Amino acid sequence: MASMRAVVKRVAAASPDDVSGVEALFDAGLDLASVVAVLGKTEGNGCVNDFTRGFATRCFEDLFARRGAGDVAIVMSGGTEGALSPHWTVFAREASDEEPTRALAVGIARTADLAPEDLGRRGQVEMVAEGVAKAMADAGVETADDVHFVQVKCPLLTAARVEEASRRGVTTATGDTLKSMGLSRGASALGVAVALGEVAADEIGDADVCRNYGLFSGRASASAGVELGGHEIVVLGMGEGWSGPLAIDHAVMGDAIDVASVREARERMGEGILVAALAKAEADPTGRMRGRRHVMLDDSDISSTRHARAFVGGALAGYFGETEIYVSGGAEHQGPPGGGPVAIILDRSQP
Amino acid sequence: MASMRAVVKRVAAASPDDVSGVEALFDAGLDLASVVAVLGKTEGNGCVNDFTRGFATRCFEDLFARRGAGDVAIVMSGGTEGALSPHWTVFAREASDEEPTRALAVGIARTADLAPEDLGRRGQVEMVAEGVAKAMADAGVETADDVHFVQVKCPLLTAARVEEASRRGVTTATGDTLKSMGLSRGASALGVAVALGEVAADEIGDADVCRNYGLFSGRASASAGVELGGHEIVVLGMGEGWSGPLAIDHAVMGDAIDVASVREARERMGEGILVAALAKAEADPTGRMRGRRHVMLDDSDISSTRHARAFVGGALAGYFGETEIYVSGGAEHQGPPGGGPVAIILDRSQP
Amino acid sequence: MASMRAVVKRVAAASPDDVSGVEALFDAGLDLASVVAVLGKTEGNGCVNDFTRGFATRCFEDLFARRGAGDVAIVMSGGTEGALSPHWTVFAREASDEEPTRALAVGIARTADLAPEDLGRRGQVEMVAEGVAKAMADAGVETADDVHFVQVKCPLLTAARVEEASRRGVTTATGDTLKSMGLSRGASALGVAVALGEVAADEIGDADVCRNYGLFSGRASASAGVELGGHEIVVLGMGEGWSGPLAIDHAVMGDAIDVASVREARERMGEGILVAALAKAEADPTGRMRGRRHVMLDDSDISSTRHARAFVGGALAGYFGETEIYVSGGAEHQGPPGGGPVAIILDRSQP
Amino acid sequence: MASMRAVVKRVAAASPDDVSGVEALFDAGLDLASVVAVLGKTEGNGCVNDFTRGFATRCFEDLFARRGAGDVAIVMSGGTEGALSPHWTVFAREASDEEPTRALAVGIARTADLAPEDLGRRGQVEMVAEGVAKAMADAGVETADDVHFVQVKCPLLTAARVEEASRRGVTTATGDTLKSMGLSRGASALGVAVALGEVAADEIGDADVCRNYGLFSGRASASAGVELGGHEIVVLGMGEGWSGPLAIDHAVMGDAIDVASVREARERMGEGILVAALAKAEADPTGRMRGRRHVMLDDSDISSTRHARAFVGGALAGYFGETEIYVSGGAEHQGPPGGGPVAIILDRSQP
Repeated sequence: MASMRAVVKRVAAASPDDVSGVEALFDAGLDLASVVAVLGKTEGNGCVNDFTRGFATRCFEDLFARRGAGDVAIVMSGGTEGALSPHWTVFAREASDEEPTRALAVGIARTADLAPEDLGRRGQVEMVAEGVAKAMADAGVETADDVHFVQVKCPLLTAARVEEASRRGVTTATGDTLKSMGLSRGASALGVAVALGEVAADEIGDADVCRNYGLFSGRASASAGVELGGHEIVVLGMGEGWSGPLAIDHAVMGDAIDVASVREARERMGEGILVAALAKAEADPTGRMRGRRHVMLDDSDISSTRHARAFVGGALAGYFGETEIYVSGGAEHQGPPGGGPVAIILDRSQP
Repeated sequence: MASMRAVVKRVAAASPDDVSGVEALFDAGLDLASVVAVLGKTEGNGCVNDFTRGFATRCFEDLFARRGAGDVAIVMSGGTEGALSPHWTVFAREASDEEPTRALAVGIARTADLAPEDLGRRGQVEMVAEGVAKAMADAGVETADDVHFVQVKCPLLTAARVEEASRRGVTTATGDTLKSMGLSRGASALGVAVALGEVAADEIGDADVCRNYGLFSGRASASAGVELGGHEIVVLGMGEGWSGPLAIDHAVMGDAIDVASVREARERMGEGILVAALAKAEADPTGRMRGRRHVMLDDSDISSTRHARAFVGGALAGYFGETEIYVSGGAEHQGPPGGGPVAIILDRSQP
Repeated sequence: MASMRAVVKRVAAASPDDVSGVEALFDAGLDLASVVAVLGKTEGNGCVNDFTRGFATRCFEDLFARRGAGDVAIVMSGGTEGALSPHWTVFAREASDEEPTRALAVGIARTADLAPEDLGRRGQVEMVAEGVAKAMADAGVETADDVHFVQVKCPLLTAARVEEASRRGVTTATGDTLKSMGLSRGASALGVAVALGEVAADEIGDADVCRNYGLFSGRASASAGVELGGHEIVVLGMGEGWSGPLAIDHAVMGDAIDVASVREARERMGEGILVAALAKAEADPTGRMRGRRHVMLDDSDISSTRHARAFVGGALAGYFGETEIYVSGGAEHQGPPGGGPVAIILDRSQP
Repeated sequence: MASMRAVVKRVAAASPDDVSGVEALFDAGLDLASVVAVLGKTEGNGCVNDFTRGFATRCFEDLFARRGAGDVAIVMSGGTEGALSPHWTVFAREASDEEPTRALAVGIARTADLAPEDLGRRGQVEMVAEGVAKAMADAGVETADDVHFVQVKCPLLTAARVEEASRRGVTTATGDTLKSMGLSRGASALGVAVALGEVAADEIGDADVCRNYGLFSGRASASAGVELGGHEIVVLGMGEGWSGPLAIDHAVMGDAIDVASVREARERMGEGILVAALAKAEADPTGRMRGRRHVMLDDSDISSTRHARAFVGGALAGYFGETEIYVSGGAEHQGPPGGGPVAIILDRSQP
């Protein structure tokens, strides 16, 4: 009985436009058609005026067009503070003759375009929840417990989209395009939470999005981009029909120094070497952590998202002994307030 | 047979001018006359235009003057990036009736004023080495191996000092006052290295200061201040004539994620709770760490010292489960390039 | 017939704690009792974590206490971007034997403490309007047209004040202390507008504060401080009962490069040398200026207030040929959106 | 008798990759083959990690390749602080049937590759001086007095280039690639100064580059780029053989607020509307300007180059009433210390 096999390759980036390492993978035999997603950490500020994401995206689009790849989800997250190292992580999947042995599974889905008036509201939550279910089906992962990371790339409101809604006589959740990014990430994360049974769908009202942070997913990672109207969803989990050496599990950090939860997840996984670690980080919104004051939210020189990535990056890199970690900021409903999900992918064939 | 007993108190700071927690220690019975040093982490940028250090220093000077304290070394280090928490650490020592049991020892020394032409050169190295020897004697610590942390507050060059030297027909190591801070820290650290036998005195020439980073101390922490002409030196070590529950040891981090060395030192110390952790951090000057590129030295928006404190702060806080850690930047000759010393003070009477 | 005479002295600051220049004024004969206000530009970031304001305030309080001055309004504004130069401007007034000749008049007033539930609402607008009327009376300035600058130092909400209101069963305009600063500045500016007849009192509802920026004063400058519960108000205008060489007028910049309005006001004043220029600056909230895009609101590395002070500071310094200009950010209802008031004080006795 | 005619078009950029406005010029009839240079102001930090320059360059290269343009000099300068507006300025030249009437002339030249050991030394000064002479000849501008702006794009040292020199047994001026950018700009500016007779060639020794700032050109603007080995030189001046409505002149600002010099140059030019203003700006290296302290060099949160662009940008925009101004930082030997050249291009056919 045949199986599917996931391939995950981590490649250093010498600059935001350095896609040479990924091209080298193709030259070395990685099947272009097998690639489904690229997650990148680029060295911009990860905030509004971070053009390293767009620069990298353009370079990957050019590469994929030049080499004739199919439809690849490209997710760029800015910010490699501290000693975090800019890199790309390529996710691929291919058919295998091996017996299925339960291994890392990768599934993808795309939703229809989101109506502007649904962004940041229940409509988006429901649409993403359905999309996650589809991506789980695509991955052949049947139970929510087997899902360990869901990356959602979601749309945002532009002036044009707000206006179009207005012409139809409906209102949008916000008229502020920057705020719409947070709302879209938040509603997407809640959609993941619903799909994975972490939050009941009827618990969530429009007013909960980006307000009631007691509701969250411990496995969602969302980023908003202007270039799409719907959602691109990548599900990573353990699949029965999959083979190969890769495995995934996850932890939910309760706060920025909750390395204990990460250690527990890592030790649960047994032997193997780290292939990828994917995390979300944010400053505790209360301004305190374990009773101690932090100044991240009061620092008008450095965005709190940069502080949080640097610090949580240090905590994770100190634990894993590795600085090519995907630490992403802006964690609305992605893990508990001040904490965040951490997915760990291991190669069990190596000690 | 009587002994000396060290007291170390860590107090939260609500702002750079919040010395209320230290005043409360006095109200609660801490003997003013016993206080020998205050080390503070304030929330400024830790760079040139960080006025939180001066603000805090002025508030402590006012407090000590108002309460009638003696001569206290006040060392302020700016920068509590990430979730590091602003705080003061008060070091005191008092006579005790208890038998000596080998415990944390605190010694202090002050040197004469440094001639401007000696700053950043062998003359300063030698002066600091002598000062450290005096502070060791003051602490009753006889062997260098028992010293685990040496804080040196050192002078810098001002335009007036450079000019005064020039009138005498001698040249200074630099005419740039900012550079003189690094040179002074570097020569001070080398002075510590000489005193502790980590580097032989005759290995060091004028040209090695802030150039030959293969020479370093694994136990030095230096900061430069405009307000003094000589050096204030605080030695922390294990003393035979001391009693009480406190103990100290240290690690030398080989790089920014070398938590393994810290764990080894901590486990060597046995049971106890963390009273203080004192560390130096810096961006690896090669631009790489364990083979991976980092961007700290190329980021024109955030100083590399802030990146390094945030990241190493995260690594240490993730390990210790504590964010009131003294992580100081600017680590010339203080630990190996890209790494730094970490001193750990425990209270062995608590589990 | 005797008169009052205003004295305005501008003094360089070598650092936020350098009050030596002001002390030198006292030593040179300036009567301590005559001093009513100090406006300072300090070199911090002018945002949340700018401790240079508090540091300077403390140093002035110490100086005034040591020298026995009376009750002086101390207003510190952070941010000397570009080539703007940190400095203090001292306002004093003294009785004179000269005939009144219409000249710069200085009046002050203090209001009672503001109820927390009135902050950022009509209650504050009315309280400030009454205070401005009192300060005008104190200055002997009878018509609103003779008022050219009103500096208001206003309170903010703290957690304790919000809670106190809550215990009384009333709600505050916001629970966010940072937002309360903007609301307090905005309501204060509207209070000035009402007092000066720029906006009719009944035009302003609670909901207009920090929302309806079509309502504004062309002569208000407000800053919020945690240390007071009421308002300190300084009115500068032309008074019939005053003598001496000083005169004041003002312009309202329509946008960040509206130097034409400033030139018009300056030329209207005739001969004299510049004693002080006091201005507010902000990024145009539309993201455009005269049809051109600006990036101040999208720059996550530098606060828009810093951009605006640097740029408007350059425009004004380029016009006046002087860099000791008081350019303050955060201009809610202080001038039109994207523009701001500029007061000009001349010494007419000098060419 | 026929003539040449210069065309200068200024186009807004909605983002670093928005070249649509330039493409629209082609669609509207601008001859692709006539384009010789594009100067861009992008919205990055203008410092080391400013990827907006590379992103814009790539987008222009793609556009020119797609449309089949010839060899165009692409010069990107990062940093649109304050209300400066991101934009492109396109320089073209075409044959005309009109009589020559003395008008704006555009000339270009490229030098051979620079030997690494010549960078930042007399060898580079001489090579650039020869290149400027060639570009002047290309422009048909015979006397140095008719040259008003020289843009030089110059190479920098990479690790590979330093090593290659080392293998040949020669040393480079520096081993630090960042420093090599300043040295290359400085030597290029001195090359312009020699070509224009502002400094005698034999006055300049290797040691003067980036040290003796008394030597400078009042018309040079240099930027270093990793992508070229030689120099691209664009000369703008007044040419006898040229026709059309455009004219150019220049001022040398003596300091950051020397608007008087700019006004003098502008008024000398007579009627016309502003087509482009091209300026260099820097913080006065003494830390003072007209006797007043500035803090640009002490601000560890914002690079002094960003401060200077914002402030000088404000001064120039306040004077010109226009925010699409090319203000570039890093002005080694480009204008006097703390000041800089400003070129003004007018369309004399419009009032």
